[in-house]
Amino acid sequence: MKRQRRFTPVIAGGAMLAIGACHAQSSVTLFGLIDTGVAHYRVHGKGSQTALASDGLASSRLGFRGQEDLGGGLSAGFWLEGSLAVDNPTSFDLARRSTVSLAGPWGELRLGRDYTPTYLIQSDFSGPWVTNGVGESIVYRGRAILYGSANAGQSSHVRVSNSVGYFLPRDLGGFSGQFQYGLPEAVDGGDAERYLGGRLGYRQGAFRVGAAYSRTMGGPKAPTTRPRDIRSASIGVAYDFGVASVEALYAQDRVEMPLGPKRFEGATVGVTVPVGPGEIRASYGQVAFRYPGDRSRASKIALGYVHHLSKRTALYATFAHVRNRRGAALTVGGDVAGLADHAASGQNFGIRHAF
Amino acid sequence: MKRQRRFTPVIAGGAMLAIGACHAQSSVTLFGLIDTGVAHYRVHGKGSQTALASDGLASSRLGFRGQEDLGGGLSAGFWLEGSLAVDNPTSFDLARRSTVSLAGPWGELRLGRDYTPTYLIQSDFSGPWVTNGVGESIVYRGRAILYGSANAGQSSHVRVSNSVGYFLPRDLGGFSGQFQYGLPEAVDGGDAERYLGGRLGYRQGAFRVGAAYSRTMGGPKAPTTRPRDIRSASIGVAYDFGVASVEALYAQDRVEMPLGPKRFEGATVGVTVPVGPGEIRASYGQVAFRYPGDRSRASKIALGYVHHLSKRTALYATFAHVRNRRGAALTVGGDVAGLADHAASGQNFGIRHAF
Amino acid sequence: MKRQRRFTPVIAGGAMLAIGACHAQSSVTLFGLIDTGVAHYRVHGKGSQTALASDGLASSRLGFRGQEDLGGGLSAGFWLEGSLAVDNPTSFDLARRSTVSLAGPWGELRLGRDYTPTYLIQSDFSGPWVTNGVGESIVYRGRAILYGSANAGQSSHVRVSNSVGYFLPRDLGGFSGQFQYGLPEAVDGGDAERYLGGRLGYRQGAFRVGAAYSRTMGGPKAPTTRPRDIRSASIGVAYDFGVASVEALYAQDRVEMPLGPKRFEGATVGVTVPVGPGEIRASYGQVAFRYPGDRSRASKIALGYVHHLSKRTALYATFAHVRNRRGAALTVGGDVAGLADHAASGQNFGIRHAF
Repeated sequence: MKRQRRFTPVIAGGAMLAIGACHAQSSVTLFGLIDTGVAHYRVHGKGSQTALASDGLASSRLGFRGQEDLGGGLSAGFWLEGSLAVDNPTSFDLARRSTVSLAGPWGELRLGRDYTPTYLIQSDFSGPWVTNGVGESIVYRGRAILYGSANAGQSSHVRVSNSVGYFLPRDLGGFSGQFQYGLPEAVDGGDAERYLGGRLGYRQGAFRVGAAYSRTMGGPKAPTTRPRDIRSASIGVAYDFGVASVEALYAQDRVEMPLGPKRFEGATVGVTVPVGPGEIRASYGQVAFRYPGDRSRASKIALGYVHHLSKRTALYATFAHVRNRRGAALTVGGDVAGLADHAASGQNFGIRHAF
Repeated sequence: MKRQRRFTPVIAGGAMLAIGACHAQSSVTLFGLIDTGVAHYRVHGKGSQTALASDGLASSRLGFRGQEDLGGGLSAGFWLEGSLAVDNPTSFDLARRSTVSLAGPWGELRLGRDYTPTYLIQSDFSGPWVTNGVGESIVYRGRAILYGSANAGQSSHVRVSNSVGYFLPRDLGGFSGQFQYGLPEAVDGGDAERYLGGRLGYRQGAFRVGAAYSRTMGGPKAPTTRPRDIRSASIGVAYDFGVASVEALYAQDRVEMPLGPKRFEGATVGVTVPVGPGEIRASYGQVAFRYPGDRSRASKIALGYVHHLSKRTALYATFAHVRNRRGAALTVGGDVAGLADHAASGQNFGIRHAF
Repeated sequence: MKRQRRFTPVIAGGAMLAIGACHAQSSVTLFGLIDTGVAHYRVHGKGSQTALASDGLASSRLGFRGQEDLGGGLSAGFWLEGSLAVDNPTSFDLARRSTVSLAGPWGELRLGRDYTPTYLIQSDFSGPWVTNGVGESIVYRGRAILYGSANAGQSSHVRVSNSVGYFLPRDLGGFSGQFQYGLPEAVDGGDAERYLGGRLGYRQGAFRVGAAYSRTMGGPKAPTTRPRDIRSASIGVAYDFGVASVEALYAQDRVEMPLGPKRFEGATVGVTVPVGPGEIRASYGQVAFRYPGDRSRASKIALGYVHHLSKRTALYATFAHVRNRRGAALTVGGDVAGLADHAASGQNFGIRHAF
């Protein structure tokens, strides 16, 4: 299904644990992905870093999920998934996704920590790498900066905790949709972050289109760490021509700041060309910030090749280059901080193995 | 079995992992439970909070357990189980229970971190919710306060680390029992917390009775964080009338404090009434503290309905109300601190799914 | 296989999770080990400690591993394994081993966090207990001190993060070998720890021999926490006489320090004698440090018995004694710090259960 494909694009297998010695009336699936490779990051005019990375093509993860048929079209399910830093492991949590669902002909109600509509549209349309490796979408990187978090792992443009979500039923003639609310959990009306987001999509044959809108309000007031009011709009379109599949995304965000709104605009185009047992990938994107004293702009190009050894295992290599103008200092990843108006580039190669 | 039922009351399934492609000579069971819902907590005269919670009916968890038949009536087993904060995941540990066991006709020897006899009697007799959600037993809440830990997760009235436990054999004509010792691990006779506890139970048809006594000694001296000497006595009785099952618990604790002993007394009655595919639950309880300058008392009533969609999945709703007198400031959960002599109340509703 | 045996010496079972309800074309194995017992540590002339420990015979662990046949002699695999503190659980991570591998007729390429060649030779030849319990190899303890980490869990004499490893193919007429490089991940040529190590082994019938050499360079400069330049050489030999198997290890390390090189030398002999369903174990070792003002020396003897209840489950008891001379202050474990020129001793007994 389309919705599931986004979360686990490469999981061909996944170990299905039969209950009671192989009477598989109900089941838990243990699944995961390990992506490890060598990455080289460079900030021109400044320095470089070579590192082992664990997300060159997809984010390393380990998870448990399952579903129970309750009869009458009803089903219950759960999904627990955590990140793996294969190169240098840290405490394991289940913070990638941690949800319980009740689904029926009326759609799906989902509670817990989950991906946001904004991220899912980004994931569907922002090109082949989305958030991974040196090829990551420049819209993802730009939003991470805008949302005030360099790594962006916990910010509401990717995931939201304490959320209540509703998904449209899957059988709506190509339409899909989602609404999500992140509870502020404020004590006695006090200030706490609140998230509201929605998403609509349509698919017909090789054609896909989707849009998302979200608003994050409240929470810590310091505008340099996490702004009080963020609005994100995203629209994407894709077509699979057979010889190549093309995705395009346009994103427009707005954050309330002390000197007025800070605006962000970004657009990417991504292409995937199947070549024998592999695929060539390319993407191009631009972002622009607008705020008193800030007119920074950056563009990025990424090129890569993925060689599928099997459905579960692939080798990959990626090259990426960012051009910074008017004070922008974006990079393609790594620990070398960007340098205003200087390009940044990088390469990675590695292996991705799903289970 | 009775003893196991207490730890995993709702696990109907549990994925059994067959060794070597379905030759299930020995096995590991992957099991868990996800309970997520919306809770509203109110402290009258002060404020309220609405939050996504992950333990409205039962504590969310993920675990691994297994058993090996060693022949001659002997068996070895292990149990590793950790908490899940489904709403807002944090580092995963296996601190709910982490034990290895050797069992034989003579009983069971169990090493590691385990539940205490005091908690198990509480769990068996303190009503339908025990430690979960707004309906949690007021004896649990009172003991958490007494033991000096608001959340009580790590305190010895629920679990003890570094413990050596002995359980009576299961086939003693209805009798069951347990003795537990928590090693102080003091360096060279220095001061470290030591736990000693025991439990006895008897079951005959629909009738159950049990009692536990424990003493926690040593450890940090500051009486406001964790007192040096805590004695807990608990006695419970239960009868399943068919149309309703009734449980009653009486608890009496004593903590040595600078001005003399601080005493705690509590009692609860809980009723569960099966109604079609669900059950109505109710509980009433009282607690009283006694210490120079402290004669605080509180009572609590909780009402709820659980609708079983299957053995593994249930929907629930609970309402609870606490009345505080003579300076007591208990709540039904949440982050709003209690207010002396003011009532607190709350509701929750959610879904519980076991696997 | 020899290489695998080192990591999981006692895992007879391991739950194999069949994909898609018992069509085991590919698989994930969930495995683990729980070792818990009571240990008593004594520093003569100072004090003692009794504690519940979780590694008397082998390190408690929980892991996930799998392999995929890619055809043409190629295979991909992963190994995720974390420590368990069964006595007092803490955050779970996968820091024991976290790797992804690509293997072919040309050998194995392995990326991630992995054991070092130095540790693997230590593990193969330093006697029955290696790093576990009161019987742990005195070479392990001495190296932990030398590498500047009392517990040594994270130091490069056991494991290295961000590593790229190459293993010789397994079918080389008894020869085995490994090369490992730990990426420094330095930003712009800055100072970061870099690891280089290699290992060669040969096995013919009951005879085994192996050697490793490694160098750890860079990183934090303070010589008391982690020296800048450490060289470790290890050579081991073993023979299984049937009635007894004997292992011997010689180790020589050198660390650059402010006053010149600090040298470490150590040697151990270990014997395992099968007796009915169990085995008697003994080891003797010596270590010596050499540095301006430091000529400390220590020796250790350990004796133990392991009773196998099954392939997966064993009971054990160990006794160990360390003699310190010329200012040495080694112990056999526990939280009582060593006392110069005073002996240390200890016992443990417990249960080890693998799954």
